[in-house]
Amino acid sequence: MSDSEQEQELGITEQKEYSPGKWYAEVVQKAGLADYAPMGGFIVVRPRGYALWERLQANLDGWFKETGVDNAYFPMMIPESYLERESDIVEGFDPEVAWVTHGGHEELEERLAIRPTSESIITPYMAQWTRSHRDLPLRLNQWCSVVRWEATDTKPFFRTKEFLWQEGHTAHRTEDEAWEETMTRLDQYHRLYEDVLAMPGMKGRKPEHDKFPGGDTTTTVEALMPDGKSLQAGTSHYLGTGFAEAYDLTYRDEDENEKVAHTTSWGLSWRALGGLIMTHSDDQGLVLPPTVAPEQVVVVPIWQEDTREEVLDYCEELYAELEDAGVRTVLDDRDERNPGFKFNEWELKGTPVRIEVGPNEVADGEATLVHRPDGENVVADREGIVESVEDALDTVYAKLYAAAEEILEENVREAHGRSEILGTIGQHGGYVKTGWCGDEACEAEIKEQISAEIVMLPLDEEQEPVHDTCGVCDDPAEETAYFAKNY
Amino acid sequence: MSDSEQEQELGITEQKEYSPGKWYAEVVQKAGLADYAPMGGFIVVRPRGYALWERLQANLDGWFKETGVDNAYFPMMIPESYLERESDIVEGFDPEVAWVTHGGHEELEERLAIRPTSESIITPYMAQWTRSHRDLPLRLNQWCSVVRWEATDTKPFFRTKEFLWQEGHTAHRTEDEAWEETMTRLDQYHRLYEDVLAMPGMKGRKPEHDKFPGGDTTTTVEALMPDGKSLQAGTSHYLGTGFAEAYDLTYRDEDENEKVAHTTSWGLSWRALGGLIMTHSDDQGLVLPPTVAPEQVVVVPIWQEDTREEVLDYCEELYAELEDAGVRTVLDDRDERNPGFKFNEWELKGTPVRIEVGPNEVADGEATLVHRPDGENVVADREGIVESVEDALDTVYAKLYAAAEEILEENVREAHGRSEILGTIGQHGGYVKTGWCGDEACEAEIKEQISAEIVMLPLDEEQEPVHDTCGVCDDPAEETAYFAKNY
Repeated sequence: MSDSEQEQELGITEQKEYSPGKWYAEVVQKAGLADYAPMGGFIVVRPRGYALWERLQANLDGWFKETGVDNAYFPMMIPESYLERESDIVEGFDPEVAWVTHGGHEELEERLAIRPTSESIITPYMAQWTRSHRDLPLRLNQWCSVVRWEATDTKPFFRTKEFLWQEGHTAHRTEDEAWEETMTRLDQYHRLYEDVLAMPGMKGRKPEHDKFPGGDTTTTVEALMPDGKSLQAGTSHYLGTGFAEAYDLTYRDEDENEKVAHTTSWGLSWRALGGLIMTHSDDQGLVLPPTVAPEQVVVVPIWQEDTREEVLDYCEELYAELEDAGVRTVLDDRDERNPGFKFNEWELKGTPVRIEVGPNEVADGEATLVHRPDGENVVADREGIVESVEDALDTVYAKLYAAAEEILEENVREAHGRSEILGTIGQHGGYVKTGWCGDEACEAEIKEQISAEIVMLPLDEEQEPVHDTCGVCDDPAEETAYFAKNY
Repeated sequence: MSDSEQEQELGITEQKEYSPGKWYAEVVQKAGLADYAPMGGFIVVRPRGYALWERLQANLDGWFKETGVDNAYFPMMIPESYLERESDIVEGFDPEVAWVTHGGHEELEERLAIRPTSESIITPYMAQWTRSHRDLPLRLNQWCSVVRWEATDTKPFFRTKEFLWQEGHTAHRTEDEAWEETMTRLDQYHRLYEDVLAMPGMKGRKPEHDKFPGGDTTTTVEALMPDGKSLQAGTSHYLGTGFAEAYDLTYRDEDENEKVAHTTSWGLSWRALGGLIMTHSDDQGLVLPPTVAPEQVVVVPIWQEDTREEVLDYCEELYAELEDAGVRTVLDDRDERNPGFKFNEWELKGTPVRIEVGPNEVADGEATLVHRPDGENVVADREGIVESVEDALDTVYAKLYAAAEEILEENVREAHGRSEILGTIGQHGGYVKTGWCGDEACEAEIKEQISAEIVMLPLDEEQEPVHDTCGVCDDPAEETAYFAKNY
């Protein structure tokens, strides 16, 4: 294939602003992140997509381990009778469960659920392993895939029947300790967005009617997507004692009394990658923060026949020096592609910094650093190039974060009264803060009209509501609600 | 619970020599590695077991990446029609497949297999991603769980319906390149056993009738277990062009002709952990090489009331110095347990080196290092303790390897003639080398009588057979066969 044919095939044809859904699907496929599986609702994660997941994992897993969490692995199948022991969870997940009914040529006596989440198989084991207060806290996590049979259009990383995630499960002596745990994990999720994915996240609580089935309180990190919808980007649940009671998770306390443990669970899925891709990318393709980019820097030599050798030598030394310094670098010295083609391809792939080296750079002992996504050029001295590149990477991260933060700040608006709420969300998307009486019916009314719902309440329940009365029914407001359309 | 009650509960009651099966199950459970799941054939991997898997993974994954392999993730479910496209694979795995037939409350139009292995879903995608010779070699790997519905007794890590593994899948231009790949992976598996798990492994080929369904040649690493059986410890398959043909994996070569690729696949599962546990452990519990032990060193202070403070201070400094040096160390300063209890508990857990510190050690500026499993004592100067501990860890590794190697060397025997083969395996277990005519019927005869089979043929097909005639039928021998009972 010629450069121009290949370029056409690789180019992003959809525009983020006008057809965000098609644009997203195109970026995911053309940047080599994922493909659609033959069965609706499933995807194939390609190496460049999986590499993002591995970097996310490495960060989060490290923080978990530093804070007392051990990894474990529980069966992917859960007997139906186990699911049924906690009535809320079976009601909450039953319509979405994939069932294994046959093993080989035999029908199973009891059908087995592919785990939609693992409280119902993990909690009974935590119960077995817990005898005295000395066994607590007990903190387990597993990285695995789960299946939820939702009948929706496939959207890679955002909406898939099978998805990769981590699910943490902990048990504690007291409500206070379990609450602290819940917040520790929420803070780690928030940190992942802030410090690794260059995305500002908002921490909050879900309303009662939208919490984890059978749990006490669900906390959430919400991230605003460029299409104006909120992404539930990670949830941490204080489960109270309900699961512990259902699965006999008790412990002998110092006072010799048998007490019921307080449990938490918390999960973050590859949906975080969906948010990452959608937030930063543009009409040229993927944009990645240097923290997770498989290649942080691409060196592109620009030469004519008579300058080929000196330019390539210069580039090879540059490449070696950057690699030695721990910068993930690639030298694109392919003969069969011209520099323009290479620029486009690495832009499509989201490489944060491009280094251009031509005969002029060689002669002057310099290198031109180009930032993705804004194309800003910086000419740097060859001497001290590592530092310049590291600065450029930090700058790219800061730019990405600042852009996302600006969008978030512009898109949290106050509104009061049905028509103002509907109009604001309808016109701008984003979040609308309003007073809320606490009645689900008020949310239902908004939801019915524009599919926006309460995605978040402030974490601090004592905080004064933004308005004295409910933005929908005008009864006294109990708290502030954040309405938004969501994923 | 008192020390003595707890000790009794923790102690290993079975003996490795006389009831290896029960002893193994007891070690696995009491050392906190795994528990049985409610459904037969499934296990729960506890943190201390999963930590072993993580260290194994880190090693192997690193070597894969250094040699051009990218991780990816494919769906856990495979449509029945995909499985059927390669007739050998469907015949090979059909009796062992778990089927998903319902999603939520709906019956599926086409039932979905939980992957027993993923050639049939991965190869079609490799085909999509491969156009020209420039796209090859293509090397993918995934870490995942697979399910094979075999109706056997559960033996944690050895025989489970669901197991964790990695499966690598690659495509190449030529047979030579694919063969080289097959051997690269086999060598990496061998290296894992030799350099990480302290187990000598033997490399070989499987006989035709025991190769991967649909493949060309299956190579294997076999490890001898202390009960005299051989463990198939990792397999690497040269698949020829059969899978590529079935799933249209072709490429345009430099000469512009469309050619069929040659593929390989290779897998290693948590069965490696089973081999590790069974090989080294003893009647006191788990024995681990320092390479994979969650804690490499435990420091146990031994004090009376009047020496408590000085001993603990000394231990804390020792602990800090070892941790700083990157030695995974735990200081067992629990007040509620006596030193003898602690010794037993850390022996059960397989910690390679115990450091005992009492008032004498403090006074003399020393520390006593005790090796697991042979209890060898070394008194080391406090000065230079890091080096002494590192030496001790190396020594423990070397001891474990040497012990396993000695058992292997003693248990490869030559035999010729039905009765000698049967007698040798019956009496000693281990491997019997004999000439083989190449006819499966000769293996079947031995298998029927003592369940021993040909676990391996030499890799080098040109090698002269050990005998001129087949050990079973006396026809001319084509090669050397290694008979053994196996897992």
